[in-house]
Amino acid sequence: MKTVILGTGEVCRLLAPAFLSLGHEVVVGTRDPEATLAGNHPYRLLAARHPELRLVSFADAVAAADRSGLVVNAISGPACLEALAPLADGLAGHVVMDVSSPYDWSRPDVVLDPVNTDSLGEAIQRALLGAFVVKTFNTLAAQVMPRPDAVGPDHTVFLSGDDEAAKARVAELLRALGWRDVLDLGGIVTARATEMMLRMWIDTSRALGTHLFGFKIVR
Amino acid sequence: MKTVILGTGEVCRLLAPAFLSLGHEVVVGTRDPEATLAGNHPYRLLAARHPELRLVSFADAVAAADRSGLVVNAISGPACLEALAPLADGLAGHVVMDVSSPYDWSRPDVVLDPVNTDSLGEAIQRALLGAFVVKTFNTLAAQVMPRPDAVGPDHTVFLSGDDEAAKARVAELLRALGWRDVLDLGGIVTARATEMMLRMWIDTSRALGTHLFGFKIVR
Repeated sequence: MKTVILGTGEVCRLLAPAFLSLGHEVVVGTRDPEATLAGNHPYRLLAARHPELRLVSFADAVAAADRSGLVVNAISGPACLEALAPLADGLAGHVVMDVSSPYDWSRPDVVLDPVNTDSLGEAIQRALLGAFVVKTFNTLAAQVMPRPDAVGPDHTVFLSGDDEAAKARVAELLRALGWRDVLDLGGIVTARATEMMLRMWIDTSRALGTHLFGFKIVR
Repeated sequence: MKTVILGTGEVCRLLAPAFLSLGHEVVVGTRDPEATLAGNHPYRLLAARHPELRLVSFADAVAAADRSGLVVNAISGPACLEALAPLADGLAGHVVMDVSSPYDWSRPDVVLDPVNTDSLGEAIQRALLGAFVVKTFNTLAAQVMPRPDAVGPDHTVFLSGDDEAAKARVAELLRALGWRDVLDLGGIVTARATEMMLRMWIDTSRALGTHLFGFKIVR
């Protein structure tokens, strides 16, 4: 399976090795590959450990994507709409796994945007009309995404998306990573639910003093 | 212990018998006691089963409250600020356990108000300046509040409030009802977190086809 990851932040650096260990061919897209490989960017450590990773521009990464594979939107929330818009034609027909949060993590106050009557997942689906956007992983710290057992034996990961086949493909990947409780909430509109949980994630992490926790739907 | 419940809806009808079985003296407040006992109001069934329950006006219920006990705000979300405001003087010095949601359940579309930069819990604390507001139970169906084991062996109930002693009193009550995982999120500002989870509660209940579930923080 060919997996393209857009973005070189923490989510990319934790998901890329996990995908490689599942046998995926992984291509990483970034704004400026030379800048990412220069200076002290933490991506350099990943590149040194995994020379099989290819780092290219966003446009080249999308051009390399396979419609039977997966494209992961791991660009940070506030910036991702602007970065994704020019890629809309290339992403048509692709499954886009979106893990973004509608929050600027550099802000001290927690204000989500969009929220309540819209979500970043829906905005991305509108920007990428021909793509099949599946929202997932956004209720979890990046460390926990590829390693559910890092926090406990059984917690829940959520799916939101309008295309059943796309959700099935993402669910299969999640199960390969060890996720046992994959809950399909419904259409991409339900991204509002998981994105609004961000406030609970932040307050819980402050109360517990750790990012290593997960939400389980007990039923 | 003396417990005053404001509101005669589903939350009152499920919590009142639970408090009675813990040995509390329970007084219920409503806008118009005569109207509540006339016609087909479902409160009549509760009153018939539990003649020891006293039903009085909101003002008389607050006058009957005990500062060593608890006042429960079980008035439905959008209406409760208007109903509570005239009771502010009487509620000074009391612990007010607030279970409200910032949502009009008669609306087909899910729009929370307030949300994101404010919460109903904070608005109630501002309206009841001398009271000690503790937000809890608002991530759960009314049926689950007094019976955590209705959905599984172990899930989480959250507390938000600015007064530690008030939260300790509410936590003691929750433990008496069988709650084992009581998570103190912090000040009343963290009511934003649990109130914004309402969207997740609604989408999960739609996905599962039941109200009988709970959120567990797995850590």
